[in-house]
Amino acid sequence: MSEKWVYLFEEVDKAEAVAGSWDGVRALLGGKGANLAEMTRIGVPVPPGFIITTRACIQYQHEGATFLDKIWHDVEAAMAETEKKTGKKFGDPKNPLLVSVRSGAKFSMPGMMDTVLNVGLNDAVAAGLAGLTGDQRFVYDAYRRLVQMFGSVVMDIEDEAFEDYLTELKEKKGYKSDTELTAEEWKQVTAKFKEIFKAHTGREFPSEASEQLKLAAEAVFKSWNGKRAIDYRNAAGISHDLGTAVNVQTMVFGNMGDNSGTGVAFTRNPATGERVLYGDYLINAQGEDVVAGIRNTSPIAQLGEELPEAFKEFTGITEQLEKHYREMQDVEFTIERGKLWMLQTRDGKRTARSTIRIAVEMAEEGLITREQAVMRVKPADVDQLLHPQFDIAAKKDAVDQGKVLAVGVNASPGAAVGVAAFDADLAEEWGKAGKDVIMVRPETKPDDVHGMLAAKGILTSRGGATSHAAVVARQFGIPCVSGAEALKIDVNKRQLSVNNVVIKEGEVISIDGGTGEVFPGAMPTVAPDFEKEEYLRTLLEWADGFKRLGVRANADYPHDARRARSYGAKGIGLTRTEHMFFEQERLPIVQKMILSEPGSAEEQKYLDQLLPFQRSDFYGVLKAMEGLPVIIRLIDPPLHEFLPSRDELVAEVAELRVTGKDPQRLHEAEAMLSEVEKLHEANPMLGLRGVRLGIMRPAINKMQVRAIFEAACDLKKEGVDVYPEVMIPVTANSNELKVMRELLEGVVKQVFAEKGVEVHYMFGTMIELPRACIVADEMAEYAEFFSYGTNDLTQTTYGISRDDAEGKFLLDYVERGLLPANPFQVLDRDGVGYLVKLGVERGRKTRADLEVGICGEHGGDPSSVEFCHEAGLDYVSCSPFRVPIARLAAAHAALKERGVTAK
Amino acid sequence: MSEKWVYLFEEVDKAEAVAGSWDGVRALLGGKGANLAEMTRIGVPVPPGFIITTRACIQYQHEGATFLDKIWHDVEAAMAETEKKTGKKFGDPKNPLLVSVRSGAKFSMPGMMDTVLNVGLNDAVAAGLAGLTGDQRFVYDAYRRLVQMFGSVVMDIEDEAFEDYLTELKEKKGYKSDTELTAEEWKQVTAKFKEIFKAHTGREFPSEASEQLKLAAEAVFKSWNGKRAIDYRNAAGISHDLGTAVNVQTMVFGNMGDNSGTGVAFTRNPATGERVLYGDYLINAQGEDVVAGIRNTSPIAQLGEELPEAFKEFTGITEQLEKHYREMQDVEFTIERGKLWMLQTRDGKRTARSTIRIAVEMAEEGLITREQAVMRVKPADVDQLLHPQFDIAAKKDAVDQGKVLAVGVNASPGAAVGVAAFDADLAEEWGKAGKDVIMVRPETKPDDVHGMLAAKGILTSRGGATSHAAVVARQFGIPCVSGAEALKIDVNKRQLSVNNVVIKEGEVISIDGGTGEVFPGAMPTVAPDFEKEEYLRTLLEWADGFKRLGVRANADYPHDARRARSYGAKGIGLTRTEHMFFEQERLPIVQKMILSEPGSAEEQKYLDQLLPFQRSDFYGVLKAMEGLPVIIRLIDPPLHEFLPSRDELVAEVAELRVTGKDPQRLHEAEAMLSEVEKLHEANPMLGLRGVRLGIMRPAINKMQVRAIFEAACDLKKEGVDVYPEVMIPVTANSNELKVMRELLEGVVKQVFAEKGVEVHYMFGTMIELPRACIVADEMAEYAEFFSYGTNDLTQTTYGISRDDAEGKFLLDYVERGLLPANPFQVLDRDGVGYLVKLGVERGRKTRADLEVGICGEHGGDPSSVEFCHEAGLDYVSCSPFRVPIARLAAAHAALKERGVTAK
Repeated sequence: MSEKWVYLFEEVDKAEAVAGSWDGVRALLGGKGANLAEMTRIGVPVPPGFIITTRACIQYQHEGATFLDKIWHDVEAAMAETEKKTGKKFGDPKNPLLVSVRSGAKFSMPGMMDTVLNVGLNDAVAAGLAGLTGDQRFVYDAYRRLVQMFGSVVMDIEDEAFEDYLTELKEKKGYKSDTELTAEEWKQVTAKFKEIFKAHTGREFPSEASEQLKLAAEAVFKSWNGKRAIDYRNAAGISHDLGTAVNVQTMVFGNMGDNSGTGVAFTRNPATGERVLYGDYLINAQGEDVVAGIRNTSPIAQLGEELPEAFKEFTGITEQLEKHYREMQDVEFTIERGKLWMLQTRDGKRTARSTIRIAVEMAEEGLITREQAVMRVKPADVDQLLHPQFDIAAKKDAVDQGKVLAVGVNASPGAAVGVAAFDADLAEEWGKAGKDVIMVRPETKPDDVHGMLAAKGILTSRGGATSHAAVVARQFGIPCVSGAEALKIDVNKRQLSVNNVVIKEGEVISIDGGTGEVFPGAMPTVAPDFEKEEYLRTLLEWADGFKRLGVRANADYPHDARRARSYGAKGIGLTRTEHMFFEQERLPIVQKMILSEPGSAEEQKYLDQLLPFQRSDFYGVLKAMEGLPVIIRLIDPPLHEFLPSRDELVAEVAELRVTGKDPQRLHEAEAMLSEVEKLHEANPMLGLRGVRLGIMRPAINKMQVRAIFEAACDLKKEGVDVYPEVMIPVTANSNELKVMRELLEGVVKQVFAEKGVEVHYMFGTMIELPRACIVADEMAEYAEFFSYGTNDLTQTTYGISRDDAEGKFLLDYVERGLLPANPFQVLDRDGVGYLVKLGVERGRKTRADLEVGICGEHGGDPSSVEFCHEAGLDYVSCSPFRVPIARLAAAHAALKERGVTAK
Repeated sequence: MSEKWVYLFEEVDKAEAVAGSWDGVRALLGGKGANLAEMTRIGVPVPPGFIITTRACIQYQHEGATFLDKIWHDVEAAMAETEKKTGKKFGDPKNPLLVSVRSGAKFSMPGMMDTVLNVGLNDAVAAGLAGLTGDQRFVYDAYRRLVQMFGSVVMDIEDEAFEDYLTELKEKKGYKSDTELTAEEWKQVTAKFKEIFKAHTGREFPSEASEQLKLAAEAVFKSWNGKRAIDYRNAAGISHDLGTAVNVQTMVFGNMGDNSGTGVAFTRNPATGERVLYGDYLINAQGEDVVAGIRNTSPIAQLGEELPEAFKEFTGITEQLEKHYREMQDVEFTIERGKLWMLQTRDGKRTARSTIRIAVEMAEEGLITREQAVMRVKPADVDQLLHPQFDIAAKKDAVDQGKVLAVGVNASPGAAVGVAAFDADLAEEWGKAGKDVIMVRPETKPDDVHGMLAAKGILTSRGGATSHAAVVARQFGIPCVSGAEALKIDVNKRQLSVNNVVIKEGEVISIDGGTGEVFPGAMPTVAPDFEKEEYLRTLLEWADGFKRLGVRANADYPHDARRARSYGAKGIGLTRTEHMFFEQERLPIVQKMILSEPGSAEEQKYLDQLLPFQRSDFYGVLKAMEGLPVIIRLIDPPLHEFLPSRDELVAEVAELRVTGKDPQRLHEAEAMLSEVEKLHEANPMLGLRGVRLGIMRPAINKMQVRAIFEAACDLKKEGVDVYPEVMIPVTANSNELKVMRELLEGVVKQVFAEKGVEVHYMFGTMIELPRACIVADEMAEYAEFFSYGTNDLTQTTYGISRDDAEGKFLLDYVERGLLPANPFQVLDRDGVGYLVKLGVERGRKTRADLEVGICGEHGGDPSSVEFCHEAGLDYVSCSPFRVPIARLAAAHAALKERGVTAK
């Protein structure tokens, strides 16, 4: 047993020597313990104490309770050092040392791990302490807290067992708040709690201080593998092998009168990022009162008025900590009879908006580099910031009409609409079933996390910006309104009510996490206003300077193209021409065209009618992307997609045949059905589409190419620079490309001759079939660019039809760990990625300057963007809304390659 | 012009020096010319002459007519040598030399190229020759032939122009045969033919011998690029760059009286392979009379009676030639006034049956090695031999009832059933539309080949075993009955009639190319009897000794397995367990099982009912394959395939709702439709099937594995050695395999425990998705064998649904040259092959002794078998009927690797 299992707070240097790095120290001592030790090192007032390491926790999982016996001598030695420093003695009624026992893993898991305060109290110590402090009321409040926390945390007694008695007592006495209870009453509560303890556990409350400590430490270790901890780690992607440390720290008391208090604060605003202290405190209270959200707190600034000296020292320390850590800090403090103690510091959790502003401002303040600022913002933060917001006009109407149900704390931004669910299990069930759910609770607890994660939004009637609900919601980017006190949330009746309005479970509500407003029904949402996100825009400009990948957008209409451009897209990676075929005035012409004989004058007549529509579509998109490349994909889906549904026709014909009612319509329906049957395919995904259609019915592609180049030439004449790139989809062998390209370049030449002007253009292909990747060297002979259609490439590589699979087995696969992620969301590097790389390599062997990009949905997924960077692609293309995410992800990939990290 | 463009027959050594090899000599001089030269070298009596090379033909295609002028001096020099040898002079009325001018390409193209006989005749020469021979009748017959052939072949006059006049004259005179015409009448015919010549061409018949020769030689060169030559080469896969030589040879005459004659013969029977001379001859006739099938010939054996000395010399020469060439020869000869001349020898075309017997017997005679014998037989020959034959009982009935329409020459074996088409264009049109066609003609001509190739069978009323129809049919393996003289084939009325029976165009007939019988209607066919094919069995035993690849069969039932074993399969590569689900008594249980709740007792109840059925299926297959491995694939298709059709239910429900007739049935149909809808998939090929189904509904696979191992253990107890290999299909990632294997091995262990006996077994996977090939290293961790399902692998690699594609675009692609072959028939080496090789390589990296095979339809395709050999697979598996083909193809691949050729 040569390993050092216990470290005093002042032994951070020893820990560093063992662990090798600050990250190693955090792994060894846990984040909380490492920071307590670090604060001790830099002279911040921290109550003395020590840490049992995370490695001890892991060892405990292997060996069980006997392991604690083995290391107990070390714990006692550390306790002796702590006693020396405080001049008090653990378990000694004459001069008792009380300690807190807290968990602390490498990564913060708020509320997930367990805490026991006031360890070391028993009847004798309480009596002694009451004599020493002269404050019996404080002592028995502390004692009953120990019994209560020990009971619920260590012995697994439902907390309600204690709280119900307390509530009952207060009602009987007519008290509104805990502070009204007298010393005697607290003593009575303590006695009652011990009875409750015995009734639930069958044993006496342990009076030995050392036994209390040991049981509490063991409870911390055990809680590491408790269900809620495992759930949380699974959700947050934290390894189960890390273990948690146990922090044993001298108790200081914020509940020793009006010159005492306790609070939590962020060094900057965690919602907006503004550089001001942000937090809450309570006078004459213990720390968990603030976090639990049971009592309503005062904003931190007010502390300057109530306890000016302590506040001044506090603000100095927070500035020191932020400079030391070069990160926004989340601190806990207690003032014991005027003396400030720092109980914790850690990097503060924050909203996406705040993350971005803090990163940008810290770079501008010189605290960090711009590269670090970019690395500090996760693509998910940008995603969250660009979440839909409520439509301003609709919201104004609702407000004007008095339809606001309540305004709570704007705890986590974003607009959310969903059905109300009044417990976590139901929220999870409905969420998994695909419903949009708003989870509604008076307050949330760690047990509720599974439901919160499945919800689109969280609404509570109690608790502030640092309540459990708020913290969890911010971390996972879920919109949250907390502490909406006007709402009466009745979990038993499964409804919420306010004034005369009642919202029952399953009814729709809307919450605005950015403003704290709650509305009945579904409020319409709108896209966020990127223009106004100045910090994000700055950050992304920096990102653009670091990235190597280009970012384009997939856009089918001029307004999409304009939006994409405003979001920073440098071109269009995919315009789907067939979307235009579905428009109301065009579809009947499209259908007649389809039903006409291929190659006939009739077919050409209808194509001639479609030409002006397509030309004007392309004119708009090309104009919006002036000076930038625009890839236009020729018609891709099978033609039957444009015809009426086969099922409906079958049913209609069957019906009309029996009734004989409408012979004219029967005749028409039969004729249409016969055409639909001709075009029917067992597996349309693998059918007559893309270039295959182009080869069998070349007139359609010829019309499209004519439309593209007529529009391009017209724009050129108007002085607009255009760069059309014509993309031929679904190619599997190079002959297809050769034949189509020859045919279509003929059309291009013809249009140039007619218009008397030429534009720069390219021909290329969409690579979306495994074979195309394999024979990419041949493809590149006829293609000047490749664009990977990774949606279809994933379907064929996996042999999975996305439409069919997601509901039927794919999500099950992900849930059961058979797949690491849904391959339609996160590009499958092993399989699909192999083919992508093979295609790039082989394609560039034939044509060194081949332009290669990706236009599947993966283009907006950060992990997939990173892959595209590594694979040497030229650009990614994604939906306009995801362009900012792709820009950031591309910068991350490049910075990661350079070894830049966030810190 | 240093190149030698003209070779005398005796200059074969010079040609060899230039061309480097015998194959080179054939390429340079053409097959016919090379053989004439070779016969000259080995002392066979060949009329003197010379050859203008194939390279001259190619040069002519580039330079045109002036090229002939350039080389004409060489031609004249060769002619002077020929004159010296014969003592005659070309164009000299006093002692005239007449020559034939024939084409001769490297590969024989019977009837495709053009021939002109008697070149050198004109009025003066004819008169001179008549004086010299004293046979005016012979001279003017020859002269009119020259005018006629020159007119039709060189000047493109329709041959009917000449023949109509001849027919008219004969009718007027009451003659039945050409031989009845007098000398004066032939002279009159010659004069008339010259008039016809002038009327059609606007010029006089060229009287200059040298001009005749030049025009004829040019016609030969031109005919190389004539439409029918190009069509033939396309069909036979012969390069268009080879060119044809011109053979100029001294004329000898088989029509100089009753001690003259002409004939063709094979050194062995080209239909059966029997070692006897086989051929036809005509006394007092020229060669083309035999080939054209206009006059009915005598069998060659009869020549021994008519002209015993010439016949003796002839048989000696044929033996000499066969030994020299070590191949069955097809020879042409002419006897001029008792003197035998050999005009041609070449490797004889023959039926598949004959090919095999000759190869085996020549090896046994010591003429060739067994390796060569194996290489001489093409997989297509074996395929043809194993073509269906008519059901013997049905045929006997038809014969007994006098339903045989006619018995003609058994010109090319095999049974064919189809609709009668009376011209080549219609036969081609119907054939391409997918109809089975029997092409029916009085006789066939080179112009008809496109229709013949599209037909399932060929029937003529004229011509023998060496007629155009017979030769072409044998070469392409098309069943043919020729010379069925009883049939009146009326091309104008588009019908054939015999006695009172009339078969109109489009009506079905059946022909047996092995017996020459013709039947009305569709005669039932049966599988061939492999047991009786002794030569094939011998050859395949030799092949087995040479091959490295194993050959297994795909078989679902015990009788399939037994047949496969008798065809030489060494195990089962694929048993499809779901086929058993479709059987009448099982399907209702299967449907109830599908509709029950997954994991429910009800589901298990129905699976328990299915268990005995499956167990008995597996018992039978395993028993039939005693001592050999049997791969059993777990259920593969999506479950909705076992339910009623969605379309039909939609129509039925729509109908019943309107009529309100049968509420009970409506309720049932609605319920079933709702279940069918739930299971419906947009792309079932890429849906919930194979291992995905196994994971979502494990009870089905568990039942199947139980059935397999219960059967296996029962057999083991009976003393039968069994080697079951359980195959998990449609895997795309190794976790699927891991999970299923663990689950199913649990069942195996359980069955072993219950039965108290264990059998050797393996678990493996079907590799049929691109991703499975890419992550084959991971797959091999859980798979002891891979079996490539190349049908599905081709579908996903190409992104082509076979069901949809073949009719809609794939066949078009092949026809237009966009694809070299249908990838579902011939494995696509570039794309699918790449993935197969990748999978083998990666799989074996993880597990060196991984067993790898292929069980797609490609397993029976020779080119694909060769690929599998090259890719290092352990075996191929194919349908039982194709096992012999695969055995031969596997031997070819191995012998090819060793450098063994057919000669």
